[in-house]
Amino acid sequence: MENCIFCKIVKGELPSTKVYEDEKTLAFLDIDPVNIGHTLVIPKEHFVNIYETPEKTLLDMMKVVKKLSEAIKSGLKSDGINVTMNNDPAAGQIIFHSHIHIIPRITDDGFGVWKGKNPYKGNEKEEVAKQIARAL
Amino acid sequence: MENCIFCKIVKGELPSTKVYEDEKTLAFLDIDPVNIGHTLVIPKEHFVNIYETPEKTLLDMMKVVKKLSEAIKSGLKSDGINVTMNNDPAAGQIIFHSHIHIIPRITDDGFGVWKGKNPYKGNEKEEVAKQIARAL
Repeated sequence: MENCIFCKIVKGELPSTKVYEDEKTLAFLDIDPVNIGHTLVIPKEHFVNIYETPEKTLLDMMKVVKKLSEAIKSGLKSDGINVTMNNDPAAGQIIFHSHIHIIPRITDDGFGVWKGKNPYKGNEKEEVAKQIARAL
Repeated sequence: MENCIFCKIVKGELPSTKVYEDEKTLAFLDIDPVNIGHTLVIPKEHFVNIYETPEKTLLDMMKVVKKLSEAIKSGLKSDGINVTMNNDPAAGQIIFHSHIHIIPRITDDGFGVWKGKNPYKGNEKEEVAKQIARAL
């Protein structure tokens, strides 16, 4: 897609530090890393987010995420790995080309994951589960 | 596995608020949600994390994650969805049975994603990419 930074990286019109590439998928280092080795896995074809990405494409991405999680953990001797995919601006998505983050973590690196929690009240939990199941 | 909370949920020995179930996979509401509707997708078979989970099992989980992300977004009218998998205690994993979080987000809910960033110095980026690629 025109003016998509990740499409330009796929086409070689913008530089990237590649860590893996196959016919369908590309992985490169995030230029604004949470931690050193923070890697993005993207489909070469343009899709905006998890809703738009076809199941087969998402599974191709996930195969690469598994391989790279193992490689990043052993290659960088990290203590843990967060795998995360942010969909929509409300969830922190900044580039609107589907991508999965692989973030190496070191014990007590202080990055945490979530800034807070939002507990259920009364029987809200059962109601919410019904709302989701009805939408499936 | 004995003494695994999620294995006990799978066997019905502990209660859960289920939102989806098939032969291989179970999804239920997180009892300590980041946001209302926070759902966990787990394999019924016990694996500890992304490294141990066989590729096929991980892909089965991801098919359910995609379906549920769409259902949670439309069913709960959320503005965005974070999909995340924490592997090892250093990455915030608390229950050592492989699971993927689906977290509905609302614009400006204040939960953010990461507490900080860790930029590359000098040519560290190229060195790190090589270390990962060598471990693949």
